[in-house]
Amino acid sequence: MADLLVVGTLALDNVKTPFGAVDDALGGSATYFAYAASFFAPVRLVAVVGRDFPQAHLDLLAGRGVDLSGVQVAEGRTFRWTGEYGYDLNEAKTLDTQLGVLADFRPVFPESFCQSPFVFLANVDPGIQLDLLQRLERPRLVALDTMNYWITGHREALQRVLARVDALLVNDAEARMLTEEPNLVKAVRTILGYGPRVVVVKRGEYGVLMAVRDRFFFTPAYPLESVFDPTGAGDTFAGGFMGVLAGADRVDDATLRRAAVYGSVMASFTVEDFSLSRLTRLTQSEVEARFRAFQEMMRLEP
Amino acid sequence: MADLLVVGTLALDNVKTPFGAVDDALGGSATYFAYAASFFAPVRLVAVVGRDFPQAHLDLLAGRGVDLSGVQVAEGRTFRWTGEYGYDLNEAKTLDTQLGVLADFRPVFPESFCQSPFVFLANVDPGIQLDLLQRLERPRLVALDTMNYWITGHREALQRVLARVDALLVNDAEARMLTEEPNLVKAVRTILGYGPRVVVVKRGEYGVLMAVRDRFFFTPAYPLESVFDPTGAGDTFAGGFMGVLAGADRVDDATLRRAAVYGSVMASFTVEDFSLSRLTRLTQSEVEARFRAFQEMMRLEP
Repeated sequence: MADLLVVGTLALDNVKTPFGAVDDALGGSATYFAYAASFFAPVRLVAVVGRDFPQAHLDLLAGRGVDLSGVQVAEGRTFRWTGEYGYDLNEAKTLDTQLGVLADFRPVFPESFCQSPFVFLANVDPGIQLDLLQRLERPRLVALDTMNYWITGHREALQRVLARVDALLVNDAEARMLTEEPNLVKAVRTILGYGPRVVVVKRGEYGVLMAVRDRFFFTPAYPLESVFDPTGAGDTFAGGFMGVLAGADRVDDATLRRAAVYGSVMASFTVEDFSLSRLTRLTQSEVEARFRAFQEMMRLEP
Repeated sequence: MADLLVVGTLALDNVKTPFGAVDDALGGSATYFAYAASFFAPVRLVAVVGRDFPQAHLDLLAGRGVDLSGVQVAEGRTFRWTGEYGYDLNEAKTLDTQLGVLADFRPVFPESFCQSPFVFLANVDPGIQLDLLQRLERPRLVALDTMNYWITGHREALQRVLARVDALLVNDAEARMLTEEPNLVKAVRTILGYGPRVVVVKRGEYGVLMAVRDRFFFTPAYPLESVFDPTGAGDTFAGGFMGVLAGADRVDDATLRRAAVYGSVMASFTVEDFSLSRLTRLTQSEVEARFRAFQEMMRLEP
């Protein structure tokens, strides 16, 4: 097993779906990522929170063995996201974003973190992503997430980051926006030309498309009778995906495919409840059972 | 190999996409279905055309070995559909429908057609579908297609047909409309309760979801760099799907899964050009090569 480093956000979310609402719930890209990845590999977390961030949330991650020595507690308020979903759960409507301490985030972490073979740069400022990249010592695989805000407003910095990472994880709208290409297959091929050799496109209820150089792989989403809250699904996918790679300490095609399915497995649990509620009740044997269910749904010989 | 009967439409289409336009092009559900199915099994076609239907179109199907003795040539004009697609090729906008001879369509066909082990009731009036069902002698598998027009306007007749067929093939919007259930998994389970033991949901660029009783199977769509015209993709899928079942003369789970992939293979060719242009240039070895490409994209061990 190899160490897995994530830099991203710890947040407090207000989320409303057709099925209910929560206020001040634990959220953030690094939270979902680290919790999901902790099922497969040792995780190191780099993020910032304000003084208002409940200690219980940090204890929850520490309880999963996540190394929190890269989490700064700064003066000010924790990053807050307020969002809403309609019956089309594929698309979140952001109602409010309060950056708080995230506005001045400069990662501070132990020197040992620079020797992390697997690294996930969650959706933060490409400038921060680039700084961090420069401090890493010969990682085996670095993966990147981003979003529309950075694509439209910070394209140049983002392109510099893209040229230096091994994998990009985005949703289909982001892939199209990044490449200005409506056809998703062309968009993926264009992104491969930017630098990454692995492109993972998350398509919500339609599953995931992964390209490893010129080879495509598809995994469906788990057929759920009720999707409660999709918040964090993408970051949970990334956590499962990177966790499996780090856990195996391998980046070959077969491990990448297994990782994409485990990512889908983990995401399928997250959406069953608000915040990390379902993940915190999750057992390793439930994870393995759902992985077998995916295998069963995907194979030609039933 | 077992005989495969299809009742549906032969049509002349006017289609406009962002990439071009055709007028009076060969179209219709039974056309795409029969041509695609002819790669796998002997096909019997039941439909009606007007005096204006070019003989060359019938010759094309006859050249594929399709038995046309159930095709009536009636006084009047052939069914015509005029439609348009925007850049979102998942949704057709119907601009005009001229029923012509289809308005008074009463299937007439040789008595021998009643002994067809495999039957596809393409998207026509549920009354016609029901009449035809009553004339069949112990078929092994009957599959049904339908559309929003019949779901909203002829629900009672449609439910009677559904209670008597083995398989339903619909797109995701139709599955939701038929069951008034936004969650697709619940919609599929509801349809299974109506009668069919097989439900195939076509999701355009996102591929196909098949439920065989309580077992789900997913196949992706082929990752095409350019989708030229999606007209006929669903009927082509159905042709490949039913063709493989009839060709194997089997309806077990493994054959159903193989059939769903071959259906996707055939549909992926249809959308590469207008009308049946790509299908008429298609070779068996291209079909097999793309089937292998699907296997490659779907399997966990690359």
